[in-house]
Amino acid sequence: MRLSIILPALLLVTASAARADDTPPAAPVLAQVLAESTTFDWRQPKAEDTLYMDLPGGRVVIELAPRFAPEHTANIRTLAREGYWNGLAIVRVQDNYVVQWADPGAGDATTRKPLGTAKARLPAEFEHTGTLPGLALIDSRDAYAERVGFVEGFPVGHDPQRGATWLAHCYGIVGAGRDNAADSSSGAELYVVIGHAPRHLDRNITPVGRVLSGMELLSALPRGPAPMGFHADAAHHVPITAITLASEIPAAERLPIEVFRTDTPAFQRLVQARRERHEEWFVDPVGRIELCNVPLPVRLRADSAK
Amino acid sequence: MRLSIILPALLLVTASAARADDTPPAAPVLAQVLAESTTFDWRQPKAEDTLYMDLPGGRVVIELAPRFAPEHTANIRTLAREGYWNGLAIVRVQDNYVVQWADPGAGDATTRKPLGTAKARLPAEFEHTGTLPGLALIDSRDAYAERVGFVEGFPVGHDPQRGATWLAHCYGIVGAGRDNAADSSSGAELYVVIGHAPRHLDRNITPVGRVLSGMELLSALPRGPAPMGFHADAAHHVPITAITLASEIPAAERLPIEVFRTDTPAFQRLVQARRERHEEWFVDPVGRIELCNVPLPVRLRADSAK
Repeated sequence: MRLSIILPALLLVTASAARADDTPPAAPVLAQVLAESTTFDWRQPKAEDTLYMDLPGGRVVIELAPRFAPEHTANIRTLAREGYWNGLAIVRVQDNYVVQWADPGAGDATTRKPLGTAKARLPAEFEHTGTLPGLALIDSRDAYAERVGFVEGFPVGHDPQRGATWLAHCYGIVGAGRDNAADSSSGAELYVVIGHAPRHLDRNITPVGRVLSGMELLSALPRGPAPMGFHADAAHHVPITAITLASEIPAAERLPIEVFRTDTPAFQRLVQARRERHEEWFVDPVGRIELCNVPLPVRLRADSAK
Repeated sequence: MRLSIILPALLLVTASAARADDTPPAAPVLAQVLAESTTFDWRQPKAEDTLYMDLPGGRVVIELAPRFAPEHTANIRTLAREGYWNGLAIVRVQDNYVVQWADPGAGDATTRKPLGTAKARLPAEFEHTGTLPGLALIDSRDAYAERVGFVEGFPVGHDPQRGATWLAHCYGIVGAGRDNAADSSSGAELYVVIGHAPRHLDRNITPVGRVLSGMELLSALPRGPAPMGFHADAAHHVPITAITLASEIPAAERLPIEVFRTDTPAFQRLVQARRERHEEWFVDPVGRIELCNVPLPVRLRADSAK
């Protein structure tokens, strides 16, 4: 039947997603790369870099990027530790763009939730300059950056001349909303990309991490009817039960999440498998790849009962 | 307040969305380009190229692309005229990829809905070769095509050497599902891109049109839990009330939709406005643009009461 016609974009894979081929193709397919991966090819995000965002519909897991946004990451950890987001809400869902959460009462000093010991303004952390261990460039012609690649599981743009590297606004990237001033973000208001990569935001705002799992809890939310996707009616806000830093809860209660490393030969094979499409369905094997179309596999650790 | 921090990706604009600037910037911003547009800059899609997809949540409007997929367009018109899709369903919602509709009973000859006078197989219509009037190329470094641009409101890839042009799988593009054989599509099963552009599908499948309005009725649907986003449980299918060809209903009942033309100086100004970002929020004016980030404005005709 004609239903299974478009090969899936991989978001969350399990250890059972492997495929065994008797006759391997000239280049591997993605399932084969994952099947052949070893424990070396996967890493566990640090608990102090992992946020659990609990919504009525389930849990979103976010990995922070302290390498790129150290000040924002530190502030976000403080906000999470002090329960800042608990009881706040998703107030904006703009189609093909972003989901955003904030304090619905932020517009008025009498209703605004205090930031506790967190800072109210942080310096812009739009890009990283200098050497970056683990920078894995890929061969791709990119509209927005001279070079592109990955660092520690995050998609990046790279300018070799300036030695600058920045997080690229691919699907699932989390950033810190700001006013017109470059240094007006605190990390208290965060957005997640839910549409085609808005790469014009690169180097214009501070990305702070990416969603590892639970994207569908954000991307499938009803779009806001007000301009820019805001839900003017508070009845349509999605309440945030809690945002918790994984390091704040007992180790036994943390999700055993693993992320495919990007600084390995296996990752280069993964990129190659997505560049040269040898799955039977493809008529043209493509031979090209774009930064935001490289899957960054996530799985639950196999030895876990969770 | 810090809520209005990310400028919106334009999907549906109205005539009232204009902005008047006393001191125009060096290059225009999008709102200014639209405000200065004249009736010449807008076109009305032909009724025989317009589909109304009525869902319980509202109406999706699709414009077909007979220039690129003449055989599929003809078959789709036949299917719509004969009410093929009425009572069928959206059976697949895959996060960051596609929504797809089909006959849920297609897997079994005893439950399959007949295609009526429509054809069951069509030739692949992956690309157009030869001269294309109205081809407007833009200056953009693209991962998947030598050149990119627009034809009659559709984003395209272009190979000058071969004289080939094809519809690019940007957000909102509609295509015809197929099996492994290149000529196995009929247009009866259609998909819509709801995530980051899966451009590896370009020239591997036949795109047939694009969604002009109502994307949020598709993109915000709950994701299917089965592999590739299928809803195995029929209770979670989204019923299609009807898909109607606009030319089959009285002119007075048709939606007065207008689409921004892409073969005009105004469109070149629009592209420029999105390349050089002069809105106050931007720290870096970007100076670059990607094919699938160029907005293709749609509006309801101003003289209409609808």
